[in-house]
Amino acid sequence: MSNQLHNELRKEFQLERMILFSDAVFAIAITLLVIEIKIPGKEELKSLGLTEVSDSNLLSALGHLLPKFIGFLVSFMMIGLYWTVHHRMFGFVTSYTRKLLVLNLVFLFFVALMPFSTGFYSEYAGADFYRQQLKVPMTFYVLNFCCMGFLNYFMWAYILNPKNKVAEPPVDHLVARHAKSRSLVVPIIFLTMLPVAYLTNVIFAAYVPMLIPVIIRIMRKRINKKYS
Amino acid sequence: MSNQLHNELRKEFQLERMILFSDAVFAIAITLLVIEIKIPGKEELKSLGLTEVSDSNLLSALGHLLPKFIGFLVSFMMIGLYWTVHHRMFGFVTSYTRKLLVLNLVFLFFVALMPFSTGFYSEYAGADFYRQQLKVPMTFYVLNFCCMGFLNYFMWAYILNPKNKVAEPPVDHLVARHAKSRSLVVPIIFLTMLPVAYLTNVIFAAYVPMLIPVIIRIMRKRINKKYS
Amino acid sequence: MSNQLHNELRKEFQLERMILFSDAVFAIAITLLVIEIKIPGKEELKSLGLTEVSDSNLLSALGHLLPKFIGFLVSFMMIGLYWTVHHRMFGFVTSYTRKLLVLNLVFLFFVALMPFSTGFYSEYAGADFYRQQLKVPMTFYVLNFCCMGFLNYFMWAYILNPKNKVAEPPVDHLVARHAKSRSLVVPIIFLTMLPVAYLTNVIFAAYVPMLIPVIIRIMRKRINKKYS
Amino acid sequence: MSNQLHNELRKEFQLERMILFSDAVFAIAITLLVIEIKIPGKEELKSLGLTEVSDSNLLSALGHLLPKFIGFLVSFMMIGLYWTVHHRMFGFVTSYTRKLLVLNLVFLFFVALMPFSTGFYSEYAGADFYRQQLKVPMTFYVLNFCCMGFLNYFMWAYILNPKNKVAEPPVDHLVARHAKSRSLVVPIIFLTMLPVAYLTNVIFAAYVPMLIPVIIRIMRKRINKKYS
Repeated sequence: MSNQLHNELRKEFQLERMILFSDAVFAIAITLLVIEIKIPGKEELKSLGLTEVSDSNLLSALGHLLPKFIGFLVSFMMIGLYWTVHHRMFGFVTSYTRKLLVLNLVFLFFVALMPFSTGFYSEYAGADFYRQQLKVPMTFYVLNFCCMGFLNYFMWAYILNPKNKVAEPPVDHLVARHAKSRSLVVPIIFLTMLPVAYLTNVIFAAYVPMLIPVIIRIMRKRINKKYS
Repeated sequence: MSNQLHNELRKEFQLERMILFSDAVFAIAITLLVIEIKIPGKEELKSLGLTEVSDSNLLSALGHLLPKFIGFLVSFMMIGLYWTVHHRMFGFVTSYTRKLLVLNLVFLFFVALMPFSTGFYSEYAGADFYRQQLKVPMTFYVLNFCCMGFLNYFMWAYILNPKNKVAEPPVDHLVARHAKSRSLVVPIIFLTMLPVAYLTNVIFAAYVPMLIPVIIRIMRKRINKKYS
Repeated sequence: MSNQLHNELRKEFQLERMILFSDAVFAIAITLLVIEIKIPGKEELKSLGLTEVSDSNLLSALGHLLPKFIGFLVSFMMIGLYWTVHHRMFGFVTSYTRKLLVLNLVFLFFVALMPFSTGFYSEYAGADFYRQQLKVPMTFYVLNFCCMGFLNYFMWAYILNPKNKVAEPPVDHLVARHAKSRSLVVPIIFLTMLPVAYLTNVIFAAYVPMLIPVIIRIMRKRINKKYS
Repeated sequence: MSNQLHNELRKEFQLERMILFSDAVFAIAITLLVIEIKIPGKEELKSLGLTEVSDSNLLSALGHLLPKFIGFLVSFMMIGLYWTVHHRMFGFVTSYTRKLLVLNLVFLFFVALMPFSTGFYSEYAGADFYRQQLKVPMTFYVLNFCCMGFLNYFMWAYILNPKNKVAEPPVDHLVARHAKSRSLVVPIIFLTMLPVAYLTNVIFAAYVPMLIPVIIRIMRKRINKKYS
C-alpha cells in the first residue's frame, strides 16, 4: 500500500515536471521576444539616415520600432493566452503517456519558434510593408501561430478523449466539446488573415486579429445563454 | 471529501504554477539585462577610435561601458525588489481568478521590456547624454518602470480588495492600506524624474532614484513610530 | 522520528531541486536554439545579393535558412528526447550523491553547447556544403551530440548500479540492461555519420539520423517479442 | 492549530520560491555563457583573413575560439560548483529574513555578470594575450569571480550565525567553521592570480586555477585525518 502511494506520488511529480518544463519554455519564449527588438544605437540611427544623435532623431528611430513593439505586445499576449490555456488543460490531466509527451514537445517547438516569426513579421511591417504588399512575412507568422493553435487543439482532443485515460475521472462530454471547439476559434481567425491578405490588401489582414476579443466575447455570451 | 481535498490541492498547484511562471520571467529578464552589455571586442575598440589593443585602451573601453554597468545594477536591483514584492504579495493569495492572471501577465510584459529600456537609456547615458540633454531614452525608461510600478499597485489593490476573494481570510485593513500606499512610493519617485529632466537638467534627474532608499527608510521609521 | 521525516523530506526536496535545475537548463538550451537563426533583415538580403525587398526575395532568403530550420527541428527533437529520457531516468533515483551531481553537470554542459553546434553545422549545411564536402562542422556537431549521448549512458550505468545506492529498491536487472543498451543506440548511430562522411560523401552522412526512428521501432518490436 | 500549520507550509513555500528563483538565475547564466561564443560564419572567417570556406580554414577558426571554449568550460564548472554549494547551503536554511533575501540577490547579480566577464576575458586570452600581457580582462574576470565567492562566504556566515535564526536547529559549531573557511579557498586562489599576473607573467596567472582541485583534495584529506 505504502509503495503504491509512493508510486502515485512519483507519477504525480513526473507529470508536474512535464508541466514545469513547459512553463519554462513558455517563460523563455515570452521573454526572448524582446531580444528581437534591437536598441536604436548610433549605427541603427545612421542606417536610418539620421546622422545626428538628438531627441527628435531618437523619437523617429523609436517610431520605426513601433511595428516591433506592437508585434511584441501581440505575441506576448498570445503566448500568454496559450499559457493560460495550457494551464487549464493540464488541470484535467491526472496521468501522462508517451504520446502526450511528444504532442506537448511539438507544441512547444512552435512556441519556441514564435520569437523568430514575430521578429520576421514585424521587421517588414513598417511603412514598406503597406506600399509593397509583402505577404511572405505575414504568411510565415500566421502559419507558425496556426501550427501552435492546431497542436493545442490536438492536445485538447487527446486529453479529453476518454480512451486515452489521461484525465480521470473523464471530463463531462459537453465541457469537452466546448473546450475543443473554442480552441479552434483563435487559429481559424488567424488563418483568415491569409485569404484577406492575398485577395484584398495586407493592411486589412493585419487588422483581422483585432476581431479575436470581440468574437470570444460573443461566443462566451451565447454559451452562457445556452447553459443558463 | 477526498475529492474535495484533491480539487483543493490541484487549485493550489495551479496557483503555484502561476507563481513559478512569474518567477521564471523575472529570472530571465534579470539575467538578460547583461546581454545588452556588449563585450568590448576589437571592433568595438575601433569604433571608439582605439586602434591598438592595450590595457589602457581596454580600460577606456570599459569606462565607456560604465553607464551600462550602472544601468544593469540599478535595473537588477529594481527588478529584484519587485520580485521580492511579488513574493510577499502572493504570500496573501489563496485563490486566483482570470482577472488576476491577466493583470499578472500585463505586469510581466513590463518586466520583460526592462532589458530593452535599460539598454536604451544606458546606451545614451554616457558623456554625450550630459552635453546633449537627451530626454527621450530617460523618458522611455521611466515610463516602462512606472508602468511596472503602477501595475504592481493595481495587483495589490485587486488582491487586497475583499470583494475579489483571492486572499482568504481577508487581509487586515490597515496592513492593506499600508501595502498599497507603499507600492506607490517607488514609481512616483521615478515619475518625478521627468519634470526634473524637462524643467531643469537631465543630470539632476538621473540622481533622483538615489532618493529611494532614503525615503523608504524615513517612511519605515514613521510607520514604526505610529504603530508602536 | 519527526526529525527523520523532516530530513527525508528535505533530501527529497534537494533531489527535486537538482531535477528542476536540469529541466531549466534543458528548457533554456531548447529555446536558445532558435536564437541562432537570424531574421532575414535588409542587410541579410543584401549579403545574399538581393537588393530589393520583395516577396520572392524574402522567400529566397527563407530558402537559404532552410538548413537552419531543419537543424533547429532535429536538435529540438533530440534535446526533447534526451529530456524525456532524463525524466524517466530520474524516476528511478531516490537519493543522490556528489558523483551523480557532477555527472549531471557535465551532461548539462553538452546540452548547453548544443545551440552552438547546431548553429555551426547548419551555417555550413547549405548548397556550399554539398559542393565543398565540408566535414568540420558536421564532425563538431556529431561529437557534441555523442558526448551528450555517452554521458547519458554513464548516468544510466551509475544510477542502475546497485552499489551506488541512488535507486532504492534496486532496479530489476533485465530492465537495467535494457535501459543501458538502448541509451547507446542513438549516439552510436550518430557516430557512424563520421566514417560515412569521411569515406563516402557528406550528403549520405547527413541522412544517417533518419535511421533513428526506424531502428528504435525495430528494437522495440524485438524486445516486445522477447518479453511476451 | 490548522492555521499555524498553514502558515508554516506557506513560509516553506516562500523559502522554496526563493531557492527556485536562484536556481533559474543559475541555469540561465550557465546556459547564456555559450551565447558569447559566436559561430564562425563567413564574415568571422573574413575578419580572420581566411577568404575561402574550407575544412582547414574552419578548423583554424575553431582554433581561434579555443580560449572561448576553455573559458566556457571553466566558468560552467565554477558556476555549477557554486550552484551545488548554494544547494548545500540552503539545505540548512529553515526560515528566511529580508537580509538573506538581499544578500542572495547581490550574490545572483555577480552570477548573472559571469557570462560577460567570461566572454571579455576569453576574447583577449588568445595569442595576443600572451604577447601583449593584457591584464585588464583577467582582472575584471577575477574580480567578478571573487565578488561571487566572497558573497557566498557572507551568506554562509549569515546563515550559520545562530543569532539570525535562519537555520533551526543551529548548525554544529565545528561544521559551521569548516563550511565558512572552505568557502574562502576558491576565491582566495583566484585572487592570487592578480599578484602573479602583475608581478610575473599573465601566462603563469592563467594556470593558477588549476591548483584548485589539488588544494581542495589536500584540504579534504587533512580534515578527514583530523576528525577520524
